[in-house]
Amino acid sequence: MTPIRSREVQVTRHRDNHPERFVDSVAVEDPLEIRLDDTPLAVTMRTPGDDEDLVLGFLLSEAILLAPDELETVELVGQSAVAARLRDKVEVEPSRFQRNMFVSSSCGVCGKASIESVKIFARPVRDFTVPRSLVAILTSRLRKHQPTFDATGGLHGAGLFDLKGELIAAREDVGRHNAVDKAIGAAARQIWPLPPCLLTVSGRQSFEIVQKAGVVGIGGVVGVSAPSSLAIELADTLRLLLVGFSREESFNVYAGEAHLAG
Amino acid sequence: MTPIRSREVQVTRHRDNHPERFVDSVAVEDPLEIRLDDTPLAVTMRTPGDDEDLVLGFLLSEAILLAPDELETVELVGQSAVAARLRDKVEVEPSRFQRNMFVSSSCGVCGKASIESVKIFARPVRDFTVPRSLVAILTSRLRKHQPTFDATGGLHGAGLFDLKGELIAAREDVGRHNAVDKAIGAAARQIWPLPPCLLTVSGRQSFEIVQKAGVVGIGGVVGVSAPSSLAIELADTLRLLLVGFSREESFNVYAGEAHLAG
Repeated sequence: MTPIRSREVQVTRHRDNHPERFVDSVAVEDPLEIRLDDTPLAVTMRTPGDDEDLVLGFLLSEAILLAPDELETVELVGQSAVAARLRDKVEVEPSRFQRNMFVSSSCGVCGKASIESVKIFARPVRDFTVPRSLVAILTSRLRKHQPTFDATGGLHGAGLFDLKGELIAAREDVGRHNAVDKAIGAAARQIWPLPPCLLTVSGRQSFEIVQKAGVVGIGGVVGVSAPSSLAIELADTLRLLLVGFSREESFNVYAGEAHLAG
Repeated sequence: MTPIRSREVQVTRHRDNHPERFVDSVAVEDPLEIRLDDTPLAVTMRTPGDDEDLVLGFLLSEAILLAPDELETVELVGQSAVAARLRDKVEVEPSRFQRNMFVSSSCGVCGKASIESVKIFARPVRDFTVPRSLVAILTSRLRKHQPTFDATGGLHGAGLFDLKGELIAAREDVGRHNAVDKAIGAAARQIWPLPPCLLTVSGRQSFEIVQKAGVVGIGGVVGVSAPSSLAIELADTLRLLLVGFSREESFNVYAGEAHLAG
């Protein structure tokens, strides 16, 4: 069954006090339960489609799994659940099932503890450089892979690009985190470990987005918005490139300046 | 101690291949643990400040509490936790402590079940009408109450306005949901039940934002972005006004057209 990503609705546009009826396309949002070996891990509000990518990306970027081949199968259960099954003999420490594992660590909830917690699980970023001219065009390149955004104006996009600017995978979702997890999951099915690459996002570069990038070994995060203080500190700690306000020929580098060349 | 909402960082701006160093202000993001009578309910990444509003708004908008006076005290515990204490004899059914209560209801995870679940807890929206000319200016009026956004470009804003367009409360946060919870909490301390009012948001009008509005009895949600399909269905069910793409003199009505007058 083809997933329904957008839906037509009746809308009234009011402009200069003139109401006008028209049909608008809106992004579909629907809950999805993520299960690992029959244990429900999370319920997320997502846009249907690419649910297997979402689950694989979520399990990897939240450090619940270490590699895609730890899974035997990923199966849709109806339209509102996805069940992942571990391969024989693969065991996952139950503490990793906890949501917000990185921000609610046992040594106390605080930004510093969250960063230390991610540091333990993050894959070391290999040395790489990327031309500034390439960084400058990534967000507009991502825009070409956001078909449902074009239709609805209401979806986040995330894309993984290699260091030559070639797209590895791009995905869309009503949730920022889900779009990133879907793109990571889609890339991880093609190649693992991930090659040095950059994550480009349409939404905010928050702590959790940088965390997801760091945990799966992505070298940098590029976006049109402003990063948060904790995202910058985490990128600094992990030596990730962190770019914000990326628009046309201008972008701001908040961490990892040494990765830029040319 | 004054909460630190933004922080200065060293940034390099690259424009037309010319790097230029400057000092930028970024929004602070830091974890906060929410406790109710010593039970940790949630850890949220938030911008420090107005943490008591955040906790009160969260407890009300997630239907964990029914009224502000069910609480005896709300106290900061260090910089990363807030502890709320129930008044003597007030009891909360433990199932309400569950995160995502509305989307992971026992009758099965799906959009329809989520809507039914909110319907049980939502306060009935009283009859009201609001002039179209007022709806048109709410998002620009909210912009005047987003001082940290002005400094950082990286924060969400949420404001509650009465039907004459007077501000009841406005708050900011790195998280969309937190900004809404803070505004609801701030308003609920002033007046409860809330008068007929409109919630104006800078972020997406997703299911959970409409849910929060419906649960505390807010009459409508107005925003600059696109609503999701499930947000529209929920607003329709609860008879809330739902406005999207609100920009200057134009806005789209997705639900509750009957609330508009003039």
